[in-house]
Amino acid sequence: MRTTVDINCDMGEAFGKWRIGDTTDSRLIPYISSANIAAGFHAGDPNLIDDTVKLAVQHGVAVGAHPGYNDLQGFGRRKISGSNKEIINDIVYQVGALREFCRRHGTSIRHVKPHGALYMELAVNPDLSDAFVQYMRITAPDVPILCMGISATYTAARLLGHPVVREFYADRDYDDSGSIAFTRDAGRLDPKTIARKVLRACKAGKVQTINGNDVDIEFESICFHSDTLGALDIVRELREALVTEGIRIGPVSQLEHQ
Amino acid sequence: MRTTVDINCDMGEAFGKWRIGDTTDSRLIPYISSANIAAGFHAGDPNLIDDTVKLAVQHGVAVGAHPGYNDLQGFGRRKISGSNKEIINDIVYQVGALREFCRRHGTSIRHVKPHGALYMELAVNPDLSDAFVQYMRITAPDVPILCMGISATYTAARLLGHPVVREFYADRDYDDSGSIAFTRDAGRLDPKTIARKVLRACKAGKVQTINGNDVDIEFESICFHSDTLGALDIVRELREALVTEGIRIGPVSQLEHQ
Amino acid sequence: MRTTVDINCDMGEAFGKWRIGDTTDSRLIPYISSANIAAGFHAGDPNLIDDTVKLAVQHGVAVGAHPGYNDLQGFGRRKISGSNKEIINDIVYQVGALREFCRRHGTSIRHVKPHGALYMELAVNPDLSDAFVQYMRITAPDVPILCMGISATYTAARLLGHPVVREFYADRDYDDSGSIAFTRDAGRLDPKTIARKVLRACKAGKVQTINGNDVDIEFESICFHSDTLGALDIVRELREALVTEGIRIGPVSQLEHQ
Amino acid sequence: MRTTVDINCDMGEAFGKWRIGDTTDSRLIPYISSANIAAGFHAGDPNLIDDTVKLAVQHGVAVGAHPGYNDLQGFGRRKISGSNKEIINDIVYQVGALREFCRRHGTSIRHVKPHGALYMELAVNPDLSDAFVQYMRITAPDVPILCMGISATYTAARLLGHPVVREFYADRDYDDSGSIAFTRDAGRLDPKTIARKVLRACKAGKVQTINGNDVDIEFESICFHSDTLGALDIVRELREALVTEGIRIGPVSQLEHQ
Repeated sequence: MRTTVDINCDMGEAFGKWRIGDTTDSRLIPYISSANIAAGFHAGDPNLIDDTVKLAVQHGVAVGAHPGYNDLQGFGRRKISGSNKEIINDIVYQVGALREFCRRHGTSIRHVKPHGALYMELAVNPDLSDAFVQYMRITAPDVPILCMGISATYTAARLLGHPVVREFYADRDYDDSGSIAFTRDAGRLDPKTIARKVLRACKAGKVQTINGNDVDIEFESICFHSDTLGALDIVRELREALVTEGIRIGPVSQLEHQ
Repeated sequence: MRTTVDINCDMGEAFGKWRIGDTTDSRLIPYISSANIAAGFHAGDPNLIDDTVKLAVQHGVAVGAHPGYNDLQGFGRRKISGSNKEIINDIVYQVGALREFCRRHGTSIRHVKPHGALYMELAVNPDLSDAFVQYMRITAPDVPILCMGISATYTAARLLGHPVVREFYADRDYDDSGSIAFTRDAGRLDPKTIARKVLRACKAGKVQTINGNDVDIEFESICFHSDTLGALDIVRELREALVTEGIRIGPVSQLEHQ
Repeated sequence: MRTTVDINCDMGEAFGKWRIGDTTDSRLIPYISSANIAAGFHAGDPNLIDDTVKLAVQHGVAVGAHPGYNDLQGFGRRKISGSNKEIINDIVYQVGALREFCRRHGTSIRHVKPHGALYMELAVNPDLSDAFVQYMRITAPDVPILCMGISATYTAARLLGHPVVREFYADRDYDDSGSIAFTRDAGRLDPKTIARKVLRACKAGKVQTINGNDVDIEFESICFHSDTLGALDIVRELREALVTEGIRIGPVSQLEHQ
Repeated sequence: MRTTVDINCDMGEAFGKWRIGDTTDSRLIPYISSANIAAGFHAGDPNLIDDTVKLAVQHGVAVGAHPGYNDLQGFGRRKISGSNKEIINDIVYQVGALREFCRRHGTSIRHVKPHGALYMELAVNPDLSDAFVQYMRITAPDVPILCMGISATYTAARLLGHPVVREFYADRDYDDSGSIAFTRDAGRLDPKTIARKVLRACKAGKVQTINGNDVDIEFESICFHSDTLGALDIVRELREALVTEGIRIGPVSQLEHQ
């Protein structure tokens, strides 16, 4: 059973004058320990990055870079068939941009979590994951990568000895392989059901799949999406459930990762 | 009379599959000491930034960040009327991106030089220059800013005690105030005439203006543009003229700036 | 006193997965007669344009093209200092894109209204307005331009004999010259106050300025902004006030413009 | 044996201040009968579209719309995994933009040819090709689509009774199935070899594949790429070879297509 767990959430995913989701980052941030801040390619712009890093610092929340495919219109949820080299360069660019805002506000990047279709592509593409981890080894050897336990990303990170944190998706369904059954639109979910699911995952290391079976699940961080309908109720409920059961919420750096 | 001078040039100003100018960065780079590398907003893309930083490292040329307005179509030569805060955030973003590629290739940013319309706006906008230097004080206190001697940028940097390097424009004309008479298209220039102009500026501290008068000029770095027609001949000629007269070419860090 | 008036509103101003304002186009559209549909440069994307043109057709609302500066991040509210030629080409491009969606859905463009900073720039720039109207004379000689009565755009259209419709801004303040006192953020306004202001403008041709004076105002169309807070209440209230007083709401084509 | 054939070429594929290829559109255009003009998503900007449409009109060359994936950095050569609906809306948008410039310069669109990865995706995706042709049936029922003879696009066009023109690729290799063996970079090719290959295809309806076999080939238009190295020599040579053998060069409208 886990005694400490991280709660991570994507943040700063608006753009210009536009917004997304039915809540705001300032309402969500008190409930999380790690913020994955959009870095400008799938969402986020320099003004919003600045504001979101400041917000995270004010709440003592760890800042992570959240690079995505270069596709604002598709919110980074469409794959772009670039070469590995091209995709890694896009990641380098975005991570660097995020770091400078961290430096400006007296903090530093505590994790990197790719977004959307890029996250999923890394998960199934060993060569791309290897190139990604190779880059991280050079410029950010101590900065953990957030990814799924069953993924090429996790495998590559372990192989190269890079710190890595596995996630449990509170607002996504699992299939019998222990992988996420990704959908573009999750609809409105019941916060109490989610809280129970998360609590069981933390305490028993089990999750029920879409087929009604139980599978084992290992993770150090819980993820939910700020654009899921009712995101605020979801995180309130699940955080309370965890704390009530004596599980501490803390950022990745306070976990005994690996 | 100067004994050492820097030669800086904009580099990595292509985009995707497109090119600009009648030469290439790899041909120009042996002749310069500082490369201002386009950071993706007016020119440059992550792949090109990666290649250009590598190229600079191979040639022992100092890497500078070259942030511009967010306007690929206009090559950063059109002003965008954003607030100071917006413009500075765009600079922060670009400088950060450049730094990460430097880190990846074992170097660091040695100067920052804004591009085109942003450079000119900073030169005449004291509030914006102040905001720019304030940002540099925090994240890059030792990294010099390249600018014109007669500019709000120079004034702001001096006032706040930030390292600053003044430029002499080899391929631009001067007016009687000692400012550059900027034109969008310079046409083809005679390399020998330019070399004489640069040499006189270095030795006598004088330049002849578009009205035929002489004005005093102070600077630590010579700038020419890679997209000026005949850029390669220009830099070859002016470098040889300088070396022949015993003036050393060296990056900003080797100058006694301030 | 007016017996018929047009109500126009910007529509389709979201982008990708993002939204703006506290209401939706489908709720607002029953109350208007003309929709200015964002054409992709300051807001709108091809999917949204398609949906919004369909929506307008379903409600019998006239479709107008709403071209803006090429600046998604700034929502077209920042001026870009391009040449007149460049700006007109951007307009041509956007108007053409809009037209194709109209053709697809069995309608055609009934008016063109530039957006935000471009609208304001045209209003004060006679050369640009002349170039804009010249272009419209060639490809859309019967399609009215929407603009302010006191503007270079109105003057140019009249001079060249191009159909033109003047607007009254329901949710903006006027100064003593009869011009709009533009602000980036209007805050929440009282719908009943706005309805009274609009009704008086229609019946008496007068509006009270920010200085408390009365100025004469001529117009054929009433404009309000879908991203103004409480936009839905505003348009409901003002439409009811007009209808109650026997003023008919009809698109530009039903007005005796000029 | 063919007595008339079209020669088509992509044009207007620069962007902003950048250029591509070792020649220019104005040098190439005297040798072709159809210009596929880039519409702004993979290349081309409104200023360049305006110039290129004008150029085509001056030379009596038929204008075609050349829509691509929304990916300037990748030059439309990377696939973006959007839904069919999204991709078709992107095409609608670009075709409309091109049409408005045609209208401005007194011409109209004579064909539509998708670009790069979009062209290839349509070729293998029957649903997408069906959606594309369905759209063309509504807004451009008389405007032929340019595509490969062995492609889902050709099949869909024939099935729905839409005019269609098949292409022979002068500067690409063929495999034994009669399909193009696409490569990102073709290298420098010998103009005389290409001319012979084209002439044989026109006269005998045969092409030798990369495996040395002969396959039958049917087409009404010859395509070459303006960014192929030595493009100018290639088109000069192949045009002369055709004319010498009594084959007339004429746009698609002069062919007995279908």
